[in-house]
Amino acid sequence: MTTRFRDVLETFENQFPNRDYTIETICPEFTSLCPKTGQPDFGMLTITYVPDKLCFELKSLKLYLRQYRNHGSFYEHVTNTILDDLVAVTQPRSMKLLAEFTPRGGIRTNVIVEYVIEKS
Amino acid sequence: MTTRFRDVLETFENQFPNRDYTIETICPEFTSLCPKTGQPDFGMLTITYVPDKLCFELKSLKLYLRQYRNHGSFYEHVTNTILDDLVAVTQPRSMKLLAEFTPRGGIRTNVIVEYVIEKS
Amino acid sequence: MTTRFRDVLETFENQFPNRDYTIETICPEFTSLCPKTGQPDFGMLTITYVPDKLCFELKSLKLYLRQYRNHGSFYEHVTNTILDDLVAVTQPRSMKLLAEFTPRGGIRTNVIVEYVIEKS
Amino acid sequence: MTTRFRDVLETFENQFPNRDYTIETICPEFTSLCPKTGQPDFGMLTITYVPDKLCFELKSLKLYLRQYRNHGSFYEHVTNTILDDLVAVTQPRSMKLLAEFTPRGGIRTNVIVEYVIEKS
Amino acid sequence: MTTRFRDVLETFENQFPNRDYTIETICPEFTSLCPKTGQPDFGMLTITYVPDKLCFELKSLKLYLRQYRNHGSFYEHVTNTILDDLVAVTQPRSMKLLAEFTPRGGIRTNVIVEYVIEKS
Amino acid sequence: MTTRFRDVLETFENQFPNRDYTIETICPEFTSLCPKTGQPDFGMLTITYVPDKLCFELKSLKLYLRQYRNHGSFYEHVTNTILDDLVAVTQPRSMKLLAEFTPRGGIRTNVIVEYVIEKS
Amino acid sequence: MTTRFRDVLETFENQFPNRDYTIETICPEFTSLCPKTGQPDFGMLTITYVPDKLCFELKSLKLYLRQYRNHGSFYEHVTNTILDDLVAVTQPRSMKLLAEFTPRGGIRTNVIVEYVIEKS
Amino acid sequence: MTTRFRDVLETFENQFPNRDYTIETICPEFTSLCPKTGQPDFGMLTITYVPDKLCFELKSLKLYLRQYRNHGSFYEHVTNTILDDLVAVTQPRSMKLLAEFTPRGGIRTNVIVEYVIEKS
Amino acid sequence: MTTRFRDVLETFENQFPNRDYTIETICPEFTSLCPKTGQPDFGMLTITYVPDKLCFELKSLKLYLRQYRNHGSFYEHVTNTILDDLVAVTQPRSMKLLAEFTPRGGIRTNVIVEYVIEKS
Amino acid sequence: MTTRFRDVLETFENQFPNRDYTIETICPEFTSLCPKTGQPDFGMLTITYVPDKLCFELKSLKLYLRQYRNHGSFYEHVTNTILDDLVAVTQPRSMKLLAEFTPRGGIRTNVIVEYVIEKS
Repeated sequence: MTTRFRDVLETFENQFPNRDYTIETICPEFTSLCPKTGQPDFGMLTITYVPDKLCFELKSLKLYLRQYRNHGSFYEHVTNTILDDLVAVTQPRSMKLLAEFTPRGGIRTNVIVEYVIEKS
Repeated sequence: MTTRFRDVLETFENQFPNRDYTIETICPEFTSLCPKTGQPDFGMLTITYVPDKLCFELKSLKLYLRQYRNHGSFYEHVTNTILDDLVAVTQPRSMKLLAEFTPRGGIRTNVIVEYVIEKS
Repeated sequence: MTTRFRDVLETFENQFPNRDYTIETICPEFTSLCPKTGQPDFGMLTITYVPDKLCFELKSLKLYLRQYRNHGSFYEHVTNTILDDLVAVTQPRSMKLLAEFTPRGGIRTNVIVEYVIEKS
Repeated sequence: MTTRFRDVLETFENQFPNRDYTIETICPEFTSLCPKTGQPDFGMLTITYVPDKLCFELKSLKLYLRQYRNHGSFYEHVTNTILDDLVAVTQPRSMKLLAEFTPRGGIRTNVIVEYVIEKS
Repeated sequence: MTTRFRDVLETFENQFPNRDYTIETICPEFTSLCPKTGQPDFGMLTITYVPDKLCFELKSLKLYLRQYRNHGSFYEHVTNTILDDLVAVTQPRSMKLLAEFTPRGGIRTNVIVEYVIEKS
Repeated sequence: MTTRFRDVLETFENQFPNRDYTIETICPEFTSLCPKTGQPDFGMLTITYVPDKLCFELKSLKLYLRQYRNHGSFYEHVTNTILDDLVAVTQPRSMKLLAEFTPRGGIRTNVIVEYVIEKS
Repeated sequence: MTTRFRDVLETFENQFPNRDYTIETICPEFTSLCPKTGQPDFGMLTITYVPDKLCFELKSLKLYLRQYRNHGSFYEHVTNTILDDLVAVTQPRSMKLLAEFTPRGGIRTNVIVEYVIEKS
Repeated sequence: MTTRFRDVLETFENQFPNRDYTIETICPEFTSLCPKTGQPDFGMLTITYVPDKLCFELKSLKLYLRQYRNHGSFYEHVTNTILDDLVAVTQPRSMKLLAEFTPRGGIRTNVIVEYVIEKS
Repeated sequence: MTTRFRDVLETFENQFPNRDYTIETICPEFTSLCPKTGQPDFGMLTITYVPDKLCFELKSLKLYLRQYRNHGSFYEHVTNTILDDLVAVTQPRSMKLLAEFTPRGGIRTNVIVEYVIEKS
Repeated sequence: MTTRFRDVLETFENQFPNRDYTIETICPEFTSLCPKTGQPDFGMLTITYVPDKLCFELKSLKLYLRQYRNHGSFYEHVTNTILDDLVAVTQPRSMKLLAEFTPRGGIRTNVIVEYVIEKS
């Protein structure tokens, strides 16, 4: 499940493909809209991945995430979709996305999604 | 062991059933009554689960927990029962409930209950 | 503006009336209902006063505050009313009440009310 | 200097006008756009005021602030304007606005604006 | 190695014996006397156990611990003994006791004792 | 209002009487008994004073405070009495005592007492 | 005492000159060289000012501070000079600069400089 | 992939080669230049290794890292290269480098690289 | 009251004598010996002063403080003496010394000494 | 590799030899001299061990560590040597020593050494 949004994502070549290493990118300023109430949701995204041939470029990630600003999407949906888009574009050895949303109605929610290479 | 209380719990369909992922819901404003003294107890609940076909809806969770507000129940009992209700309604792949109660008489108690699919 | 609620408040005699000193009482487990939505509000009350002839008794304060548990009242109203009740019962040299409510809709509110002896 | 935006702000009557007391409202989820780059800015607003006849209603404050979501405005401008709007609508005895913006280019900015009744 | 002290410990029946779950009880106000100097020692006890048929009752735990107030005992001794008493009374599936003592002579000590079912 | 307890307090001569300076002594391990329930109370004392001719000796302060270990006394009473004893023995230029007690019944209390030279 | 460095500083017009308000700018990534050892020094600058007709522009401030990167200057000197440059360019109603340097040889230094309009 | 930079790195003989033990060196003052914008980047490096015959000398490490001050390098590149240089010079049993960079554009990045003895 | 110790203190000329500004120097690694027990004491010194013609040089301050390493001195004495030495050498407009010592026997002490120009 | 220093270490008999349990001793006030510069080093030692027949006595540990006060020793050397001394004296089932030294030249170092029973 991927989106039109991923078209803005750019990549650069991993210069150290012989080594498994980890890149962790933390975006504390994520915001989207609640599809039910239309009110803004806020959250922090932590993307952790082991690159294969490609890394995502940070400025394009910022533009990619900005597209959710006026887009309605549920917590679970937005988290799974962002992972799918980043996986589609970078084809990493592994990737994990932690989304920590700010409280609503006194209740706080985190969603943790991990990419596992699917066996055909 | 489940309660009448669980009737208010609503679910929605998990849109990503092909993937094991984790939803963590944190409710810092849980309150019930001590069955012995009638005095209020306060605590924070952290529910962590891997959904299968269903996720619980957050607003209904709030209404569900609100029913404990004037209900007398011991720490161990209330924690086990809430887990049982949430499991009954969502049938998750796994679920864990951590209940952290505020101090009474200088002593603080946490209860940690985990759902494991029972072998028949 | 005082309430029926204050009838449960008990006092004891200040043993050191010749000295101006300060008593600070912190109640992190205050809860009442929102009169509009019926949903629970949570907050922390900090009462700071210089006693004159009387101090309030802590167990009776707890019972007094417990009466708000199922009572609907706005933030500003509940804070001003609790101050009025405590002043009426203890007649202090001065008293201040800070009420810090937990976030609702991403917005957090504190109300600070101070008792000043009114000049007739 | 006030805006069209203030039309959504609603007020309710202060029930305790005989007393000077303080209401502090904290909004950690403010976001607007940078008028130069079009990129989102994020910040936390703390509004502290002594009401006279009117208090602002919290839900309408939320809607008011939401209007800045896709509006371009500099830090200094947005802070002064929000204060002006809130003062125009509530006519408080005094009001202070602290806006703490998240870092940009490794630099963080706060703006503190205070309303003082202007002598004619 | 158990003590007369354990006679005050009361238990109640575990209502959920079919499930392995964890109860964590934290007592930050433990105090005993140093057997060498007669000076008070202070510490925080964290008891973590998986109950079998019985749970210890919190009020009786408090009375049990209070008996150490004027009792001389070394760090290692007191920690091992409390574990032995709690195990003797509740017969848990497993139990762990962490005792964190406050600094003496610039040196701070923790003792961690775990109950393992002894093979005969 | 002073006690027999103060007899153990020792002093030493202030070597710098020509200068007003401040000594702050923090005792996080104070404990006494509640006169009503007989249960232990715990608290942290902060003594701040400007010495005149005498300073209190720390080891004797420790012995002095230890006498409250099995002594029943209310929060307000114990705080005022300790100040009175320390003032009687050291005759300082000024002295302040802050006593911060740990929570009981979900409620926490601080008492702040200041010594002011009484005008005859 | 001002520098060639200040030539890069740009200003914009204060839109709210009728009001005294405060702008606080925090730069945690300041670095210069020690003139004695040639080794890098690191620090955090906090600039707090009440603008008159002009505010400094943040991007130009960043470029201005970057010039110190390979410039040798003592703590006291660099702090006083930056204040002088910012005052010369913005002519504020008042300005304060706090510079907090990271430890060297186990010793940490802060310098606090304030601009006061000099009476001729 | 190693650099000319590593020529300044000095080592000393490990005095305890019979034992596997860990040295952790934390450098919170790392700075380099962004190769795209020429603007400074800041970060904290944590080097964790099990020495074999040689340890790196701390003063030479400082000089080594200082060379990046005016050198343009991407996050991923600089982290992998520093690890390669340190491995080349000390030939450790194992080594890990965690680089935590400060936020840019509201986004923060960490890179974690581990040295694993390559099988020929 | 000054010491031989002060002979190692070096000063440099204040380059900004026309301005009152503040230098704060924090030394978290101060250690001396207790004159009674011979055991080491540890503490953190914070020196805050407004220089007149001279500033103390940081390396010489370090050497100066090092002399207390094997020197027996009471808390109050060491704090007053260090202030006297620093005042004698730098002749500041004002100076304050805060000494925060680590706990002994569960009791922690701070001494705060301020230099005030004595009127003859 | 052990030292003369270990002669002051005293032990007492472990009263619970049938059980594997852990004692953790934290010494935040360790200080020695740098053998190169003669300047003091400061650090925090955390000793974690499972005793066999003997435990080390805390007062003698303090005296043991005090001997390093005027002794020159490198980080790696001092950490390994202290472990060797403690192992030689107590013959534990296992022991670990973490030494965290305070920053020098902006760089901070930890050394972690573990005792493993050597196979002959």
